[in-house]
Amino acid sequence: MSNDSTRCGNAAYATTQISADDPLRTRIAEAVRSVRNTTPLAQSFTNFVTINLVANAQLASGGTAAMSFLPDDIVDTAQIAGATYINVGTLLPFYKDALPDIAERLAHLGKPWVLDPVAAGIGTTRTAILQSFRDYPPTIVRGNASEIIALADMWGLNDNVGDAYPSSRPAGVESVDDVDSATGAALRLARHLGRHTGKAAVAVSGEVDLVTDGEHVYRLPGGSAMMTKITGAGCSLGGVTATYLAVADPLTASIAASSLFNRAGEIAEGSSHGPGSFQVEFLDALWNVTDEQIAASPILVTR
Amino acid sequence: MSNDSTRCGNAAYATTQISADDPLRTRIAEAVRSVRNTTPLAQSFTNFVTINLVANAQLASGGTAAMSFLPDDIVDTAQIAGATYINVGTLLPFYKDALPDIAERLAHLGKPWVLDPVAAGIGTTRTAILQSFRDYPPTIVRGNASEIIALADMWGLNDNVGDAYPSSRPAGVESVDDVDSATGAALRLARHLGRHTGKAAVAVSGEVDLVTDGEHVYRLPGGSAMMTKITGAGCSLGGVTATYLAVADPLTASIAASSLFNRAGEIAEGSSHGPGSFQVEFLDALWNVTDEQIAASPILVTR
Amino acid sequence: MSNDSTRCGNAAYATTQISADDPLRTRIAEAVRSVRNTTPLAQSFTNFVTINLVANAQLASGGTAAMSFLPDDIVDTAQIAGATYINVGTLLPFYKDALPDIAERLAHLGKPWVLDPVAAGIGTTRTAILQSFRDYPPTIVRGNASEIIALADMWGLNDNVGDAYPSSRPAGVESVDDVDSATGAALRLARHLGRHTGKAAVAVSGEVDLVTDGEHVYRLPGGSAMMTKITGAGCSLGGVTATYLAVADPLTASIAASSLFNRAGEIAEGSSHGPGSFQVEFLDALWNVTDEQIAASPILVTR
Repeated sequence: MSNDSTRCGNAAYATTQISADDPLRTRIAEAVRSVRNTTPLAQSFTNFVTINLVANAQLASGGTAAMSFLPDDIVDTAQIAGATYINVGTLLPFYKDALPDIAERLAHLGKPWVLDPVAAGIGTTRTAILQSFRDYPPTIVRGNASEIIALADMWGLNDNVGDAYPSSRPAGVESVDDVDSATGAALRLARHLGRHTGKAAVAVSGEVDLVTDGEHVYRLPGGSAMMTKITGAGCSLGGVTATYLAVADPLTASIAASSLFNRAGEIAEGSSHGPGSFQVEFLDALWNVTDEQIAASPILVTR
Repeated sequence: MSNDSTRCGNAAYATTQISADDPLRTRIAEAVRSVRNTTPLAQSFTNFVTINLVANAQLASGGTAAMSFLPDDIVDTAQIAGATYINVGTLLPFYKDALPDIAERLAHLGKPWVLDPVAAGIGTTRTAILQSFRDYPPTIVRGNASEIIALADMWGLNDNVGDAYPSSRPAGVESVDDVDSATGAALRLARHLGRHTGKAAVAVSGEVDLVTDGEHVYRLPGGSAMMTKITGAGCSLGGVTATYLAVADPLTASIAASSLFNRAGEIAEGSSHGPGSFQVEFLDALWNVTDEQIAASPILVTR
Repeated sequence: MSNDSTRCGNAAYATTQISADDPLRTRIAEAVRSVRNTTPLAQSFTNFVTINLVANAQLASGGTAAMSFLPDDIVDTAQIAGATYINVGTLLPFYKDALPDIAERLAHLGKPWVLDPVAAGIGTTRTAILQSFRDYPPTIVRGNASEIIALADMWGLNDNVGDAYPSSRPAGVESVDDVDSATGAALRLARHLGRHTGKAAVAVSGEVDLVTDGEHVYRLPGGSAMMTKITGAGCSLGGVTATYLAVADPLTASIAASSLFNRAGEIAEGSSHGPGSFQVEFLDALWNVTDEQIAASPILVTR
């Protein structure tokens, strides 16, 4: 990915590696250490498939976890949690009322949260829930390319600019679009979030992760193809992003979490023999990788 | 089990190993390769205990996974999935309406699905749900002996033939009956399914797995006793059966999945030291076992 | 912890190690062997985060597992199960009616159960559910110090004695109180349970676990700090306590389960490199640790 050039808006910008002493790297290292030293609580409303891995990844990253589904639980816990993670996989009927209610209450409380729009575009209930978040949006959205494009479509953000980014067909939980194709949607989403919450970020996961604060676009190469052969690498990345959001600004939290996952994925790939041992080694690596390793990650920026 | 003789209907038939060049072995190898080459999506409506292992086993076998509980999610995803897996463990109140609705809609869409009648016989809600499936049945049923017998009882299939197969008492999630005692129920179930869906199969899991298309009875020895010391070996077998059903006929899918699990169980037993490492090694083995190993599995047939 | 002196009631009592031939050690060894020889069924109504680990820990300890959420399933399964485990994490709306109903029905059936009051004090729904258990209480309560104190508060038990034990602020799922601070609450809870169910016990998990039958206070040192770096060590301890309760009295079941977990934790810590491998090694150790090792555990008693 180094020395790549990328269409962003309608112009081509140079993508360059940020320097070794860029202040962003300092903020990343500080976030990693702060989580490990203060074990912040990030709570989750997340799907049943990967809820265990989300909690274990948050613990392995140094934070603590609490999972709830009732608005009264979420609101009570929001008072003692640094951030909230909401993931719209495996919906149940009562979520249609509960999730819009929770988003509105978090907005009134001024509590930051991370949204994972899993399977955006599948199901009328999910669409209704995701649309309700438009006016009480999260601080960070993290998804795959298809989900980011679908969410920006749902929120009518793709009409706001003159260029034509491709829309996505519903894709289940797997992306059918590549990360670069979601660049425009990610930028527009990040700007929309920022208008509501101040600082904001959007992270697009894929072969090379993309993170933007609505102004700059960062690309984070690395990781392991084995991360797609276990369920929940993306969900647990969303959860750990919330853990970092408890101690850092949205852009730093998103980049720190992606970089942690990429380094841990590489370490796990080298010491595993299939998806079973990969997951075990991955959790160990989340625990063992150093703040220096994470902060020294390749970070390419398009300005 | 070789050279065994088994009561089937009212007559004794010889059980023999199928030959090394039996076309069934070719179909099994093709199914295994096809899944690994095309990563088909099989969606699941499954219990909360083992939902993570179901997804991870499907991924480790080469497929992709999506889990949902709302009819609108299931029907939307059915359009892009090769097969659906429904497992009636850990019921919630809304399932009583949702699951009959889903079965009827899958029937009208002509979409194949696999039923795991977990704990059949326990609870009035589960009984009502399972009875509703009688007229919109799955393509494959996979369960333990007690569950297969209980389901055939519920569907009134045990009155259709002159012989008297034993009925089962409710058994929780563990079978209290051995596989052979479910032979008659499995045959009658398979014929019932086939009348609705064309080709069909029933798989009975146990010390020696049994699979039938309503005509022939196949027995698949092997596996590991440690598979009963982790939760979800049966559930994840049902999920992987759906993965294979996305690319193969019901009989081939059922035999390929059972054979894969038996070979992976044997490999995992040899390299593990307890149920924790067994599950890790089992997922690695699902990923690493070759199509030739699976297709060369012992397959005994009663004609 | 040896030769410690502990405030208990208003007096100071000597804490001493029980002898090597104390009958309690014999009962512990018998419970461990009985579970491994008879594979008793303990059913669970438990949270979605750790439901898989609860089942796997019960299996690794030698028992069998069944998980349900509908009252008709729980009541049917109670007929064939030795004990029931109820854990109030990850509440759904229908639990508000289902759980009080289940507790009342278990009381009328005379079936023993174990309560894990996860996150007691968080959420009005959880509080209503926990308050409803006051008159149909479990045989055993197992929680962290904050949860035990909060539950005793909710049940109005802290007014029954002259001394003033500290109340706890809501703490999410992590304890903010240390085990000793819950001694009084644990004693009063155990006496309350005992008035309803005959023999009863309360277990407080922490750096040194505490178990009381309302008369004596036992402290069980050991374990591993890594048990707080995986999700569900406490939940699965509650589940395995139910497994032992299927074959033993409440005090023996609680001490056997805590001792098993402490020994397994120590073994796992020695052979793991992070929380991923710790969980794997922990399940292996639950399977491999001997009844002699468990029964020989350090057990300090305050008489």
